[in-house]
Amino acid sequence: MSEAAQTLDGWYCLHDFRTVDWTTWKMLSGDERQAAIHEFRALLDKWNTTQAGKEGSHALYTIVGQKADFMMMILRPTMEELNEIETEFNKTKLAEFTLPAHSYVSVVELSNYLADGEDPYQNPQVRARLYPELPKANHVCFYPMDKRRQGEDNWYMLPMADRKKLMYSHGMIGRQYAGKVKQIITGSVGFDDYEWGVTLFADDVLQFKKLVYEMRFDEVSARYGEFGSFFVGNLLDEERIAPFLQV
Amino acid sequence: MSEAAQTLDGWYCLHDFRTVDWTTWKMLSGDERQAAIHEFRALLDKWNTTQAGKEGSHALYTIVGQKADFMMMILRPTMEELNEIETEFNKTKLAEFTLPAHSYVSVVELSNYLADGEDPYQNPQVRARLYPELPKANHVCFYPMDKRRQGEDNWYMLPMADRKKLMYSHGMIGRQYAGKVKQIITGSVGFDDYEWGVTLFADDVLQFKKLVYEMRFDEVSARYGEFGSFFVGNLLDEERIAPFLQV
Amino acid sequence: MSEAAQTLDGWYCLHDFRTVDWTTWKMLSGDERQAAIHEFRALLDKWNTTQAGKEGSHALYTIVGQKADFMMMILRPTMEELNEIETEFNKTKLAEFTLPAHSYVSVVELSNYLADGEDPYQNPQVRARLYPELPKANHVCFYPMDKRRQGEDNWYMLPMADRKKLMYSHGMIGRQYAGKVKQIITGSVGFDDYEWGVTLFADDVLQFKKLVYEMRFDEVSARYGEFGSFFVGNLLDEERIAPFLQV
Amino acid sequence: MSEAAQTLDGWYCLHDFRTVDWTTWKMLSGDERQAAIHEFRALLDKWNTTQAGKEGSHALYTIVGQKADFMMMILRPTMEELNEIETEFNKTKLAEFTLPAHSYVSVVELSNYLADGEDPYQNPQVRARLYPELPKANHVCFYPMDKRRQGEDNWYMLPMADRKKLMYSHGMIGRQYAGKVKQIITGSVGFDDYEWGVTLFADDVLQFKKLVYEMRFDEVSARYGEFGSFFVGNLLDEERIAPFLQV
Amino acid sequence: MSEAAQTLDGWYCLHDFRTVDWTTWKMLSGDERQAAIHEFRALLDKWNTTQAGKEGSHALYTIVGQKADFMMMILRPTMEELNEIETEFNKTKLAEFTLPAHSYVSVVELSNYLADGEDPYQNPQVRARLYPELPKANHVCFYPMDKRRQGEDNWYMLPMADRKKLMYSHGMIGRQYAGKVKQIITGSVGFDDYEWGVTLFADDVLQFKKLVYEMRFDEVSARYGEFGSFFVGNLLDEERIAPFLQV
Repeated sequence: MSEAAQTLDGWYCLHDFRTVDWTTWKMLSGDERQAAIHEFRALLDKWNTTQAGKEGSHALYTIVGQKADFMMMILRPTMEELNEIETEFNKTKLAEFTLPAHSYVSVVELSNYLADGEDPYQNPQVRARLYPELPKANHVCFYPMDKRRQGEDNWYMLPMADRKKLMYSHGMIGRQYAGKVKQIITGSVGFDDYEWGVTLFADDVLQFKKLVYEMRFDEVSARYGEFGSFFVGNLLDEERIAPFLQV
Repeated sequence: MSEAAQTLDGWYCLHDFRTVDWTTWKMLSGDERQAAIHEFRALLDKWNTTQAGKEGSHALYTIVGQKADFMMMILRPTMEELNEIETEFNKTKLAEFTLPAHSYVSVVELSNYLADGEDPYQNPQVRARLYPELPKANHVCFYPMDKRRQGEDNWYMLPMADRKKLMYSHGMIGRQYAGKVKQIITGSVGFDDYEWGVTLFADDVLQFKKLVYEMRFDEVSARYGEFGSFFVGNLLDEERIAPFLQV
Repeated sequence: MSEAAQTLDGWYCLHDFRTVDWTTWKMLSGDERQAAIHEFRALLDKWNTTQAGKEGSHALYTIVGQKADFMMMILRPTMEELNEIETEFNKTKLAEFTLPAHSYVSVVELSNYLADGEDPYQNPQVRARLYPELPKANHVCFYPMDKRRQGEDNWYMLPMADRKKLMYSHGMIGRQYAGKVKQIITGSVGFDDYEWGVTLFADDVLQFKKLVYEMRFDEVSARYGEFGSFFVGNLLDEERIAPFLQV
Repeated sequence: MSEAAQTLDGWYCLHDFRTVDWTTWKMLSGDERQAAIHEFRALLDKWNTTQAGKEGSHALYTIVGQKADFMMMILRPTMEELNEIETEFNKTKLAEFTLPAHSYVSVVELSNYLADGEDPYQNPQVRARLYPELPKANHVCFYPMDKRRQGEDNWYMLPMADRKKLMYSHGMIGRQYAGKVKQIITGSVGFDDYEWGVTLFADDVLQFKKLVYEMRFDEVSARYGEFGSFFVGNLLDEERIAPFLQV
Repeated sequence: MSEAAQTLDGWYCLHDFRTVDWTTWKMLSGDERQAAIHEFRALLDKWNTTQAGKEGSHALYTIVGQKADFMMMILRPTMEELNEIETEFNKTKLAEFTLPAHSYVSVVELSNYLADGEDPYQNPQVRARLYPELPKANHVCFYPMDKRRQGEDNWYMLPMADRKKLMYSHGMIGRQYAGKVKQIITGSVGFDDYEWGVTLFADDVLQFKKLVYEMRFDEVSARYGEFGSFFVGNLLDEERIAPFLQV
């Protein structure tokens, strides 16, 4: 019998990080820039309609530091839709003035906690987490991670009972941050270079540091966590787009 | 006596990932773009003829995320033909508007399961797998991998009997996905930076995640698997090429 | 109970490293260069006003070697302000002639040594360290670091008592450099790729080497320290900006 | 007494990998391209003269995949000559349309098997291997490698007798490929980032995979081999140069 | 008491590696190129004056392979002077036609072998090594290195007596190369990404390989050495500058 944890899988997810090429952006006339922003806003309108229809969700954040200038996080029912959105953005005028900085492909993932016999995909609470509307929190934090497979510290060689116990106490730390940090786990095995993406939302950016730091002392992270790059950012409300791009 | 597993080797294989430079592509006139697409379609026609003649095969997929925009997977009887195809594409008009994103050089590889005395290269079932026509599945997943050689976890120091036993149970997982995921293993020792390339085809993209995740708990992957970058994509049917490149 | 060390957190911090594109900078007319410098000086004036009002601080250093040409270190009460400053700089004329070389996002961090019951954020000595005015030392040294989690050398699996004891003797080394080296530790768990940033200030650049080298023999660094890139530089006084950019 | 193996050292060696910038190459007029090819052919004529005079040797191969488009392998008596050839190529018209893709600096190296008293550098068989004329095989394979120094797997801490015994059985594998694969080992300690370069020549490209794979199960590679990037290519005969560069 | 080895520190050191952009260099008129070379020669004249006054030293070498085209090694009493020289070069015409390829920041370092009570900085032999005039040897070899801190192989956890004993026998190997290889060790803890830079000078380039290879079997390197990239080059005498840059 397979020792792999059973997962529930929701919407597919694309994190798309971009750097603005301010030098060439400034070379446009004011009218051209307005047209480019207008076109981008029209794209967002389409995404808003999708979101209102509960057929997907998205979030827009500026990123602090040189890793990127902004990030679009997109949730959709199919991988094809993610690809279309990405390509549609790439063909916009604004995209000519951005450089790809990083991306991540994954799918919203939950562990299956429900009793046998019940179809979790019909459970409303489960559905709310598999097909979430992304929050408008002040801040976002994104990082990818693996479970380590190294010498004595090999997560995938542990018996399932041990993994469950470890994950339970790990989850207890996360629960202490309920109401402060909203966490969306996306699975990326077979889709991208790490096994999971972690996206955190909070109104107080310091809670990211407190949560991730506290978890690092938990055995799941301390012995078994391998982390990729961390990105931190601020909500880019639609009304902030024009000022952000104002030059 | 050598402890190396015996392999059967089929067609040579090039995975060629490209990123579209949309900004300069848009600078062309509509006629120039049509001409470039037309030239690329003519190349595909030649490849289709080769495929119909069972002298090779190819597949075209768009890639999700910023790692690449599309991928051409090419199978041919000789390394020279791969090189010619690559160079022929490089000389096209379309190639001027793409950037190399990644590539992988390998050869279709099977383990030799047949009884002694039989020439496996004459066995029709074996031939079908060594010289396959690539499926038109909705999705593709590609990743390269090594068998680990690290401290106590050294695949190449295991006795052959142990390796065979481990690979047998590993293969059993793959068989559970028969009909859902088609897997093509290509060997790349001496040809590229990892030891194998794994190309998966499926109509349901989620099966990639399920398969790779389940295998990760198997000792072959858990202790001995080292994985490179993962690429996931959607079928780029020939009729979808023009819309994909429409700007 | 959590084994995580309690931290006090002050101003948010951005280290922003830039490389000058001297070739294009020289293509400007003298007047254009003067205007660009003037605009940058106006930005510094705003930062100086903020610093005088004790609502932030900043430092400017040239960097030795090809990793960067200069570094701006910025402290502010919120992550949003860091983002605004970064974007405001990116929109300047001078920024058109610089290339991003490296950046680091963190927050000033202290361990909480105070007795229970006292609010450390009200303690004037603590406040002076959480919200510091950056010194005008001749030299700066910056590097990010992690505590190692590798086999037997796993900091995060040590009991808190052991960590405290190790950190105490580690801190004793630092104290020997009091008056010679000023050290600002910024925490970056959840914000950037390492767990901490270390920024050292000294009038005698050799003290950086002596301090870091001596610490490397201490068990905290010897067994548990993982270091990123080191950057070393010289104070870029405001009066030195014009000569530095003179071509 | 030193435990280092004694080596014999022959001609210095530069592997120079280049990518063709087809887009700008196509912008030239046909006459300009002909002149560039002509100039490159004149360079090759000089190299051919050197080779005929047994004062060096060279080989030209196209490379499969995106790592490079072609590779020049150059052998010369001095490091200065390698440097001059590299610079002379860099100054050609053709070089304006190539991008550096990779290079490797080393020296032809043999272990000293001869009896004491004999000067190996006077032995004709030894000389033929230290100052070889590179074969015109259909295919080339190049990769750099190190002997591992990691925990229990530390080649350089083994007694010389153990190393000799291991290398002997390792060499036995190579001998099975005599007539199929020609191998040139070049030492690069102190010259480039790995300790050795391995260049294989074969008319049947599959023999590279068979040889390298079989060796990987030998303890020398299994426990002690660390490998860099692999490059595989096809002979670029002088008559194939013009068609290869024809656009 | 600190277990850190005591060091003597001399002149600060910048290794500055550059790649020539031959394509754009050729676009200049002959007069413009002459003017650029003339300006660079004037810079060298200043450096020569400094060297004659024993207030610094410098060396110029071309580099073999694609890692760089030439390297300037600069010694000066202060970090500020290194920064000024770097910036002064960056502002020259010639610099517009070079690309930064690599750099390293360090300080000439000696272990303190002298008897207590004597001031080593007054000892003429010590001074000659701390403030050396760089030799005009035919060849240079540069590489950075660390002492390993990994599991059982942790240099910084060894007792000082063990380290001294190991370093003594390590130094004995180097002494066998006296007269053949001149070695300058520069410390870079706190200044750059490795702990030391090693610069070797020799008239016979093969001696670099012999020395570094022989040392690799010594326990100090075998168990504790971690090496960065190796650069090897040929003396660029001032009279060779014009021919080198002749196009």
